[in-house]
Amino acid sequence: MAPEDTVAIAAAQAASLASKNLAILSTQARNEALTAIHSALAVAKDEILEANAKDVKAARNLAENGELDKSILNRLDLNRVGKWEEMLKGILDVRDLSDPLNQISLRTLLDDGLELTRVSCPIGVLLIIFESRPEVIANITSLAIKSGNAAILKGGKESTATFVAISTVVAHALQSTRVPPNAIQLLTSRSSIPALLSLDKYIDLVIPRGSNELVRHIKSNTRIPVLGHADGLCTIYLHSSCDVDMAEKVILDAKTGYPAACNSVETLLADDLTLVDTLPTIAEALIQRGVQLRCDEKSFEALKHSIPSHMSSKLSISTDGDYTTEFLSLTLAIKTISTIEPISGVEQAIAHINAHGSHHTDAILASPSNKSIAEKFMAGVDSAGVFWNTSTRMADGMRYGFGTEVGISTSKIHARGPVGLEGLLTYKYKLQGAGHTSNEYHDGGKQWKHKNLGF
Amino acid sequence: MAPEDTVAIAAAQAASLASKNLAILSTQARNEALTAIHSALAVAKDEILEANAKDVKAARNLAENGELDKSILNRLDLNRVGKWEEMLKGILDVRDLSDPLNQISLRTLLDDGLELTRVSCPIGVLLIIFESRPEVIANITSLAIKSGNAAILKGGKESTATFVAISTVVAHALQSTRVPPNAIQLLTSRSSIPALLSLDKYIDLVIPRGSNELVRHIKSNTRIPVLGHADGLCTIYLHSSCDVDMAEKVILDAKTGYPAACNSVETLLADDLTLVDTLPTIAEALIQRGVQLRCDEKSFEALKHSIPSHMSSKLSISTDGDYTTEFLSLTLAIKTISTIEPISGVEQAIAHINAHGSHHTDAILASPSNKSIAEKFMAGVDSAGVFWNTSTRMADGMRYGFGTEVGISTSKIHARGPVGLEGLLTYKYKLQGAGHTSNEYHDGGKQWKHKNLGF
Repeated sequence: MAPEDTVAIAAAQAASLASKNLAILSTQARNEALTAIHSALAVAKDEILEANAKDVKAARNLAENGELDKSILNRLDLNRVGKWEEMLKGILDVRDLSDPLNQISLRTLLDDGLELTRVSCPIGVLLIIFESRPEVIANITSLAIKSGNAAILKGGKESTATFVAISTVVAHALQSTRVPPNAIQLLTSRSSIPALLSLDKYIDLVIPRGSNELVRHIKSNTRIPVLGHADGLCTIYLHSSCDVDMAEKVILDAKTGYPAACNSVETLLADDLTLVDTLPTIAEALIQRGVQLRCDEKSFEALKHSIPSHMSSKLSISTDGDYTTEFLSLTLAIKTISTIEPISGVEQAIAHINAHGSHHTDAILASPSNKSIAEKFMAGVDSAGVFWNTSTRMADGMRYGFGTEVGISTSKIHARGPVGLEGLLTYKYKLQGAGHTSNEYHDGGKQWKHKNLGF
Repeated sequence: MAPEDTVAIAAAQAASLASKNLAILSTQARNEALTAIHSALAVAKDEILEANAKDVKAARNLAENGELDKSILNRLDLNRVGKWEEMLKGILDVRDLSDPLNQISLRTLLDDGLELTRVSCPIGVLLIIFESRPEVIANITSLAIKSGNAAILKGGKESTATFVAISTVVAHALQSTRVPPNAIQLLTSRSSIPALLSLDKYIDLVIPRGSNELVRHIKSNTRIPVLGHADGLCTIYLHSSCDVDMAEKVILDAKTGYPAACNSVETLLADDLTLVDTLPTIAEALIQRGVQLRCDEKSFEALKHSIPSHMSSKLSISTDGDYTTEFLSLTLAIKTISTIEPISGVEQAIAHINAHGSHHTDAILASPSNKSIAEKFMAGVDSAGVFWNTSTRMADGMRYGFGTEVGISTSKIHARGPVGLEGLLTYKYKLQGAGHTSNEYHDGGKQWKHKNLGF
């Protein structure tokens, strides 16, 4: 066995054992551990920021040589104004949330003296694989301890110095608390990932935080459930009834606010009735912000003749592949919906999105008086988020009011859409009796009461 | 491509498309389809029971030649008293449940005019693979239609004639309803299973109903989430404080009620203080019911000298493997818990169960005055069901009052323990705005309200 596999197995076994003890710790013990981590990090601020500066410097050199994407620099840098304070505040924010464990979600009297209770409990062991954001260590460690889960964290190579500095402080801080130190395992070697992904005996959930490529790779290489999304191919359907100013504002936000985000729009479906006025206005505004438009023939013809000629270089004819591409850049695919087809426009839009989208977030822009069309769209589109007259960029745990976000899931199992702390929980059934046996209830025997006791 | 693969892909694609239409059908349309299936089956009773008699006859021949387990005969036979009526009543019972779709579980005002709602919706396409129980077709078809999910059903070869007869009637009945006929796909060829298990693009959840072997095979051969359990290694911990009569009654029920069931007990952990009186009494009762006891040395020595000598042939020394074996027969492994160890008995029991069990259902038998020990056991054992003074056989959707049972899950993701209709649901977030964009809320911009609107 390769040495990195031995390390991975030892880490997973230790985390699994520790998770059983962490799961039964009191609220106070878990909160105290978060306070201890917060204090220790505050004391170690200078050494951590120094380590982080080294990571940033190395990354900057790579970026200048074109060996690293420049956007990583920003994500890596803990010295940016407010970032350190935000990271520390996040720990206390999580600590101050109400305890998610031991929450009762069902209580039934099965029979006299036989009471069933369903209570929330931790999932067990989380594996978090992340890339350049070093604050994820503090963030996920807090969420894991708060929810009673053990966690194995594997950071990206660009943030190794920061990761080692923070993780040393965290590990040391935990030693003075009741949280078993093995509950938080910190691994730096990339080569341990394949072994970790095979350890479904010890690891219950994988949470990848990083590029699509990372998530896609992980999803294809493990039997462990993955919480997250590989793709964010979001679509906006521009219905003919839509107010042009509102549509322009929402589409600009969805496309240009942060083009690399998973909740940015990638495809615009436009009713043919919008080709005369609405779409040209929106297209001009997009092109002014630097957006390239890949249009089907109908919209291409319409826009070519209606936008200023100096902008026409920003238009091109789309290929089929453009409608299944997550550009993550200032490029937008446009497709015309023919409203003279026997199938209604909204039904065509639903069919297109369900066939081409990634089940992340999709929106319809339609006047408030077209409620039945909007409702049809929201019922028919099979996505985690279905929006009416607002930007796809709203799909986010913070914006949804979840306080903290574990990730955005496009899976339909366990958790869907932006996932808060509750995504890290499962439940168990407790049944208390007085010697009750199942055979007493067989044919003609005792009758079940099944009385809902509320909770 | 092999012909069976083509069939599987066509079935999955058709089910996926149909699922989108089924998902948006009204409550009434779905309920009417269940009424239609019920009526059609009632009319076709004679031809279905005739087909079933053929299956039973063929199976009986195989069983007499020792080529088939005799227990299958019982499960196969729809002509048994009450079985047909029960199957038909089940359809109407499901129909009469309240509609599980479009149930609101969260409603938040993010800002004025921007309202977030979380509503329940179908998962999409279910693949149900079952063995000898032909009534599963009616059962699962009802649950799928009620919950708005399309379903692909693959029956076992022993029930093929019954399966074809029922499925023909169901498919015909659906043609007069608003449920798209493709929403229920019925496949008979075993060779289509590998292709189906690879179609995670179209199939969202696999539900195996059958032997451990079947479930284990499926779990190891698909990336699609599986709802169910391969193993049911349930354990009872006999604490020294336990009342002997209660313990005898509960353990007899758990071991001999239906030894082949997943919720039967397989291992008994016994405090050393029970070796003198309690365990011998229980052992005698078990042996009288035909149970073989595989004991560790301590319990073997104690029982050998305390039970009648003609019973001693039923005792043997256990191997390590006996504590990780799901016997599914009248065999019970017994292990002594030493109460003079520095670690308390209950902690040793928890550690044994977490390391050797299958996270299905485990019970402690301890006097009502030992609440803190029982609570410790129930908190520490990482299983879907943790019981105090009642039989592990209670772990069952019907007994829990769920009305109907999709399966029992030992996974910690999505659904755990006995799963009712809610296990076939996911949710989506609907967000309705009036042109709200995310950038308005950036640094120093508008503030989120995040007001819980209740539901």
